[in-house]
Amino acid sequence: MVKLIALYRKPENAEAFDVHYFDVHAPLAGRMPGLRRIEVARVTGSPMGATDYHLIAEMYFDSQEAAVAALGSPEGKAAGKDLMGFAGKLVHLVFAEVRPV
Amino acid sequence: MVKLIALYRKPENAEAFDVHYFDVHAPLAGRMPGLRRIEVARVTGSPMGATDYHLIAEMYFDSQEAAVAALGSPEGKAAGKDLMGFAGKLVHLVFAEVRPV
Repeated sequence: MVKLIALYRKPENAEAFDVHYFDVHAPLAGRMPGLRRIEVARVTGSPMGATDYHLIAEMYFDSQEAAVAALGSPEGKAAGKDLMGFAGKLVHLVFAEVRPV
Repeated sequence: MVKLIALYRKPENAEAFDVHYFDVHAPLAGRMPGLRRIEVARVTGSPMGATDYHLIAEMYFDSQEAAVAALGSPEGKAAGKDLMGFAGKLVHLVFAEVRPV
């Protein structure tokens, strides 16, 4: 299982960010072909003190190839365009492979 | 559901890091009381180009209180001491609350 993880740093206006994320962006991302599941979590703090992070979204795919294909699909391109518009300066995206522990 | 998320930046020696993480640290973290599940994922790249991240580990608890209590338990303190020893300069920890999408 491969995850596309979006790490969002704190926006200037958290309320407006959340409205856009949950009402517009998550539905767009949810249309990507091959997407198995989305898990979104709102950062509430850090046991180490401060954190720059606001939201962490994980999109699960069967494989790296499926994740790359999803991003290149029309639905993925639409989600990417929206992402750059509302959070281009805040987001960092990584691919990660789930490992047994 | 609340996650304690550990974001690890790239270590100098990834092989030695992984051996310690999977053979020593994950079993220690896995003993924390109240822990429901651990999901560990190895970062393989970024669709944006480069990434500083190496590994992302998520520990699931029923609540923020349960996560804080786990960190303060003898098992949590042992895991924390080990963490600071092998990855103190690489790790960032956050609490995050899973939200419906």
